[in-house]
Amino acid sequence: MGKEMLVKSQVKYIQSLGQKKFRDQEGAFVAEGPKIVEELLKAPNLRLLNIFAGADWLAAIDPAALAGPNPPSITELRKGELERISTLSTPNQVLAIFSKPSFPPPVFENLLSLLLDGIQDPGNLGTIIRIADWFGIRQIVCTPDSADAFSSKTVQSTMGSITRVQVLYEDPGNIILEHPSVPVYAAVLEGSNVYAMERTGSGMIIIGNESKGIGAALLERVTHRITIPRTGSAESLNAAVATGIILSHLVR
Amino acid sequence: MGKEMLVKSQVKYIQSLGQKKFRDQEGAFVAEGPKIVEELLKAPNLRLLNIFAGADWLAAIDPAALAGPNPPSITELRKGELERISTLSTPNQVLAIFSKPSFPPPVFENLLSLLLDGIQDPGNLGTIIRIADWFGIRQIVCTPDSADAFSSKTVQSTMGSITRVQVLYEDPGNIILEHPSVPVYAAVLEGSNVYAMERTGSGMIIIGNESKGIGAALLERVTHRITIPRTGSAESLNAAVATGIILSHLVR
Repeated sequence: MGKEMLVKSQVKYIQSLGQKKFRDQEGAFVAEGPKIVEELLKAPNLRLLNIFAGADWLAAIDPAALAGPNPPSITELRKGELERISTLSTPNQVLAIFSKPSFPPPVFENLLSLLLDGIQDPGNLGTIIRIADWFGIRQIVCTPDSADAFSSKTVQSTMGSITRVQVLYEDPGNIILEHPSVPVYAAVLEGSNVYAMERTGSGMIIIGNESKGIGAALLERVTHRITIPRTGSAESLNAAVATGIILSHLVR
Repeated sequence: MGKEMLVKSQVKYIQSLGQKKFRDQEGAFVAEGPKIVEELLKAPNLRLLNIFAGADWLAAIDPAALAGPNPPSITELRKGELERISTLSTPNQVLAIFSKPSFPPPVFENLLSLLLDGIQDPGNLGTIIRIADWFGIRQIVCTPDSADAFSSKTVQSTMGSITRVQVLYEDPGNIILEHPSVPVYAAVLEGSNVYAMERTGSGMIIIGNESKGIGAALLERVTHRITIPRTGSAESLNAAVATGIILSHLVR
């Protein structure tokens, strides 16, 4: 494999991919660290564009993983260079740029989907994507003001699930209107006990913002208000934890 | 209320409370930001020792909240001083030092408890404490190598639950041996389906380290191996999410 040296324009390009606007424009994102990079290399629906790594990582990786009809550009980093391009507090061996994964058109009928109303924390979003993947949910619709699924912190916390769950940025209200036969669930303070719900494989589940909950317009479209019963004193549950609990009861 | 000016020894004292060793020695911890500080001020089982805040926050707070038989020392911060003592990237109005909360002796019989085996991430620990509080669990036993419940990041993510859930640092193996009649649950890859478990109000639930899971010695003491069935592809669930799902099924 032909190796290049790190040049200034690459440093700038990597930094620009720290912004959502630029990631959308390029259809690309950054992943850091051997664990997530090697996980993403196995996925069939995205392409490795550039790899920046130390000699040790490059020597250990199976060359077949970096080959293919459109081989990536490979940059071997010298000591201290990873620190120049990394956004991690402890940079770790490798940084890669991938094309965003491609998916077939989303299907909302007879499947479970998540609708996220303004989830702000990248770690929460990543954890929710990982939960969706655990329960076999193929698509998540985020309001445009939600955290970006392709920020480096979110990608990291999905542990590779970002390649198996499609994350769309659209108005969830429109998706609901376009699929009037699909039940719409939301966790609210006063709703039906989620523990007593019928098992279901069809529905859209709305998860609200970490502090503001679900917006009024979206709440109007909910057909099934559900509640996770509280037996103690905490004011609320973390959004990702609530997602996991609700899904486990709807699919059980 | 008598107000003081920020002096160098206070800056050093606050910084030293960033270390677990010093927090343990002093029996004190730091909380930052109006939301969590005002939440902690309401708790009956801990004492406000020092408050460092801007004039605006001090003017807005009910003086009764800062009074009492042992009133705290109050330091009014000038512009830029909060930045000197804060560990937050965006310091927010107030920093407070509290005594650690006091609790009655723990009871493990006929109650649910959590045993955490090496949870490393302060945010995960805080979220687990909040989940415990939601489900009415009064005590968590952490292996001594776990994250500290009184680090400022953990305190922040408990949203005040740190005053209602007792977090002990002891060998969970000993706690199990001392209470042989209490069932011990753990989520493992091959166990009974958690969705089919009997509801229970008595048991110790072991949650493992984020990447290494549960240690072999502790695993030997488990009486009920349980599994959250996976219907999709993710390799694992976040430790806090798994805790929430398991508890919701055991208490449902």
